[in-house]
Amino acid sequence: MPAYATNMRMKFPIVALTLEIITIILFGVFVVYDDGKSHGHKPHSNETHHDENPMDLYPMFQDVHVMIFIGFGFLMTFLKRYGFSSVGINLLLAAFGLQWGLLTQGIWHLDDGKIKVSIFKIINADFSTATVLISFGAVLGKTSPVQLLIMTILEITIFSINEHLVATVLEANDVGASMIIHAYGAYFGLAVARVLYRPGLRNGHENDGSVYHSDLFAMIGTVFLWMFWPSFNSAIADPGFTQLTAVINTYLSLAACVLSAYAISSLVEHKGKLDMVHIQNATLAGGVAVGTCADMNIGPFGAMLIGLVAGIISTLGFKYLTPILASNLGIQDTCGVHNLHGMPGILGGLAGIVAVALGKKEGGNAAMQAAALASSLGFALVGGAITGLIMKLPFWGQPPDQNCFDDSIYWEVPEEEEENEESLAHGDHSKNKAEV
Amino acid sequence: MPAYATNMRMKFPIVALTLEIITIILFGVFVVYDDGKSHGHKPHSNETHHDENPMDLYPMFQDVHVMIFIGFGFLMTFLKRYGFSSVGINLLLAAFGLQWGLLTQGIWHLDDGKIKVSIFKIINADFSTATVLISFGAVLGKTSPVQLLIMTILEITIFSINEHLVATVLEANDVGASMIIHAYGAYFGLAVARVLYRPGLRNGHENDGSVYHSDLFAMIGTVFLWMFWPSFNSAIADPGFTQLTAVINTYLSLAACVLSAYAISSLVEHKGKLDMVHIQNATLAGGVAVGTCADMNIGPFGAMLIGLVAGIISTLGFKYLTPILASNLGIQDTCGVHNLHGMPGILGGLAGIVAVALGKKEGGNAAMQAAALASSLGFALVGGAITGLIMKLPFWGQPPDQNCFDDSIYWEVPEEEEENEESLAHGDHSKNKAEV
Amino acid sequence: MPAYATNMRMKFPIVALTLEIITIILFGVFVVYDDGKSHGHKPHSNETHHDENPMDLYPMFQDVHVMIFIGFGFLMTFLKRYGFSSVGINLLLAAFGLQWGLLTQGIWHLDDGKIKVSIFKIINADFSTATVLISFGAVLGKTSPVQLLIMTILEITIFSINEHLVATVLEANDVGASMIIHAYGAYFGLAVARVLYRPGLRNGHENDGSVYHSDLFAMIGTVFLWMFWPSFNSAIADPGFTQLTAVINTYLSLAACVLSAYAISSLVEHKGKLDMVHIQNATLAGGVAVGTCADMNIGPFGAMLIGLVAGIISTLGFKYLTPILASNLGIQDTCGVHNLHGMPGILGGLAGIVAVALGKKEGGNAAMQAAALASSLGFALVGGAITGLIMKLPFWGQPPDQNCFDDSIYWEVPEEEEENEESLAHGDHSKNKAEV
Repeated sequence: MPAYATNMRMKFPIVALTLEIITIILFGVFVVYDDGKSHGHKPHSNETHHDENPMDLYPMFQDVHVMIFIGFGFLMTFLKRYGFSSVGINLLLAAFGLQWGLLTQGIWHLDDGKIKVSIFKIINADFSTATVLISFGAVLGKTSPVQLLIMTILEITIFSINEHLVATVLEANDVGASMIIHAYGAYFGLAVARVLYRPGLRNGHENDGSVYHSDLFAMIGTVFLWMFWPSFNSAIADPGFTQLTAVINTYLSLAACVLSAYAISSLVEHKGKLDMVHIQNATLAGGVAVGTCADMNIGPFGAMLIGLVAGIISTLGFKYLTPILASNLGIQDTCGVHNLHGMPGILGGLAGIVAVALGKKEGGNAAMQAAALASSLGFALVGGAITGLIMKLPFWGQPPDQNCFDDSIYWEVPEEEEENEESLAHGDHSKNKAEV
Repeated sequence: MPAYATNMRMKFPIVALTLEIITIILFGVFVVYDDGKSHGHKPHSNETHHDENPMDLYPMFQDVHVMIFIGFGFLMTFLKRYGFSSVGINLLLAAFGLQWGLLTQGIWHLDDGKIKVSIFKIINADFSTATVLISFGAVLGKTSPVQLLIMTILEITIFSINEHLVATVLEANDVGASMIIHAYGAYFGLAVARVLYRPGLRNGHENDGSVYHSDLFAMIGTVFLWMFWPSFNSAIADPGFTQLTAVINTYLSLAACVLSAYAISSLVEHKGKLDMVHIQNATLAGGVAVGTCADMNIGPFGAMLIGLVAGIISTLGFKYLTPILASNLGIQDTCGVHNLHGMPGILGGLAGIVAVALGKKEGGNAAMQAAALASSLGFALVGGAITGLIMKLPFWGQPPDQNCFDDSIYWEVPEEEEENEESLAHGDHSKNKAEV
Repeated sequence: MPAYATNMRMKFPIVALTLEIITIILFGVFVVYDDGKSHGHKPHSNETHHDENPMDLYPMFQDVHVMIFIGFGFLMTFLKRYGFSSVGINLLLAAFGLQWGLLTQGIWHLDDGKIKVSIFKIINADFSTATVLISFGAVLGKTSPVQLLIMTILEITIFSINEHLVATVLEANDVGASMIIHAYGAYFGLAVARVLYRPGLRNGHENDGSVYHSDLFAMIGTVFLWMFWPSFNSAIADPGFTQLTAVINTYLSLAACVLSAYAISSLVEHKGKLDMVHIQNATLAGGVAVGTCADMNIGPFGAMLIGLVAGIISTLGFKYLTPILASNLGIQDTCGVHNLHGMPGILGGLAGIVAVALGKKEGGNAAMQAAALASSLGFALVGGAITGLIMKLPFWGQPPDQNCFDDSIYWEVPEEEEENEESLAHGDHSKNKAEV
């Protein structure tokens, strides 16, 4: 079946190397080190005594870096046979995405015709990859590495346009990126998932689930995301007390969110038990939802209220909405990104509109906040649909249904243990059947 | 059996949500951002050029944060079937505890009737949760989430009283908290464990042990604790050279402790082999024991000597004392917190008395140090006993003996692998038997 | 067989405790805290506003610390039955090595006859342990803890001599230590491996491979190394824009390297699949190779080119060179350190020569760079060969061939799971056969 020629031997190396070489050439033409001689954008306010040390944001950058590579990567290892792809393809997409993001974000802020790389810029480059990793969660297990590289290019390019519109044209506030990263990444991914709908997976797939230890690996991702989220939401805030505000709001929102996620998980589950899917994901919704407001004067009370609500709607979403999306709308959202990033991202955008309307942010404009949310959703849905159509072209090596959620189609997987597990679990050894 | 009604469906959500909503209301009344306009306590000395940046301690905070959530959480995943609870309930307790700790610690230092949240304050809030996580180790596998939330409230409240007494009234030194966190948390937990003594577990339990990969997960916790302990012991030290001293003393104490823990483990074990329990725990005793002295002028030699001794007594405690405590005193200490936090904590307190008596800390007073140690132990034992009695009330959903050390009583556990493992290991599938 | 008396009961505790006690005494004689009163070496340039805060480098130090203990430790857990040793012995060697490195590096820079410990010095102490951990990778699974402690002492001592020669005598540039750590550590380890050649392992060993979850544990190591490598390469760079340059060069080199490593892995593997060994290791080669040039003005383009090439040669090395080294030269390189540290280290040294010759580093001298590379390789090969001969003495408790790559020879391993796995995988239970 040529449509399912999943052998990557030529396709993937050619695509990956070509992209990288083009990128390096573009870097040769456009990119230089920031020498501190001018400040194209987001000048830091003068209220701080940090005058000019170019490394001040470096610890914040490293926290964000850990979220991108460990956090997102391990969060997706919950699937029993898809851990290599989760953490490995996460690394691939983020490593390419940060280069591409530096270019597409930098192009709006040229300085003497050059993109001047600073810690601030590489934080934003890491941020841009987060959109792709969120969308990756929606299509996890059902796409080839080549498809995902294509998604990376398109999603980051469109992200950079929307971000420019939101931040520079609309001058909306979104310091923790509830709208431009979380809502955008989620609805982009859901649009892609809709286009790539697989009727053959309607009744589930034996590998679309976790085993005991894969759930523990996923908790590594969850906990690192949870801990460093205050850095995510405050990294590009104005230094000093504004940044402190963003840290404290996020810290408190996440703490409140944990309690509501656990409570609702127990309330809706069989015999009051906790569900690992909820714990791995919904405990983070408070970080997403407080993002837009993080640097606003919403008070600890406001931040915790947002977190409490986010934990509730995220857990309820996993329990009740995800199955409906799959069965009624044809949106198969592997990781439930709609519950972790989609709805909490919209909640964050709405909270931002309200907070700005209430005067919690100097110079804010509620209409522009609303426009920013609409723009992010619009670019996500249209961009995701178009991207999905391109990804649907039949020569990118996508896996056939029966090989979904299985590392062994794109990875060498250690034979021995696998045989044991497979034969124990299923009685036969049917993997790899689509390989040519 | 109503005493063992482990279905959490109503109990847990109601307790968790009620606590969180009360907490949010209290935050609404009492808690504001620190605006830097006044400094209620622990004013930093003037010798530093860091004048007013409110984010200076943020990297230290994040190191402590990692210790609390990854360190403690994964350290306890060593049990073969209790990893979900270890890392998951650790997250729950710490997320609630940090909110509660902000309130109970802050209440002593009101500023215009408000608790002003700064990085310094959230470090201390994280610290307060460490006491609970240590005690959690003593009762791991034998308590319900509701029982543990109750323990969290009580233990942190009592901690805040003792901390205020030690730091403000006695003016004792305990920068790395050997006494007020480690000894306090350990003996509090041991007192609780004594009250909750289970004769039915006298002969052990098949799930009270590790498997190969669970021991590796635990090493994630060990190593993150080990690496970031210098941050724990120096986070609230006076900035500048005093903080440097705390870092170096801890770094060297831990390094020396590793060698003695490994040596003694090999010496006392069957055929000279290393025991993972010792490696996971006793290698950290040097961090505990050097805590009180960390910012004192004890010299690298003094720090290393403390670490060497701590590694020895901790390992010997695991080998010889823990079994005696269980069989003779009815103290079933699941993680051996007496060996990691209890004895090394007392060692740290004693070292502090000696160091202060020798004039290693300007303005120190050996009698006050001794009083601080006695106070910490007294509050721990009395507070732990009372807390244990409350936790023993028969309606908190505690697990029956046969379901101890088993995630599946409070968690949805993936079926497939479990069945394999269970049937392979035990020949039958007897879990969940106590569920109603 | 007395030559294979692997019981460590007396040997290991005596060696470990004796070494530690000697070390503590030497610390008592030589080591004091840095009080900031004088600056023996590597004075920071004056262009920065960082005047005197002794904690400025602390976040960088912690990143390096994570690379040493989590990064190297977990990277080596890929073996199916050697995870305890990988992360556990890594901790042991690094904990001892950092103490020894503080002494042997400090002895060249005495200040009033004392070694004054600062954050800068403990970063360098951590660095010195990296050489040992690299060499450990070459002999992983085939050496006893006592042998490895001996290697630690000798390798760090010789490293300190070479480092002094390179940095102080030759005044060569090697900010990220491509030559003095990576090439040195790799060729030292390969020389040891050559001397310890085991003909009995010529046809492989059933435990010399991974299982599914051990490969995921290894990815924890990989990703932490990958993320924090910019800190490794910039930690001791001149502060300010030079340090920023080192961060950005490393960040970009690593990103480019990921793409080429993935592309080549797919190109050379069976059916175009990705190979976990390549992903775990070759994605890091860009960090090694850009080390020497990291703080030079090579431009983002130059950094990415180095990373691209490093990813290619490293992956090709794993595929084609490692088998040849084993079969033709008798060099059994368990982790393939030649591909991750050896060749990329030399590439880094060569790139440094070219960059300095092109005037990319003020005050650099290409001949001195070449001499530094030659010196590092020479000390490595001669030092490694001598060290290997000492390690080959028959009374250090080395494992017999059949017990290689098996934790259970030096560790208590949980019985239950092991029995399952062993009996499932091999049909018999033949471990421990060499124990007396």
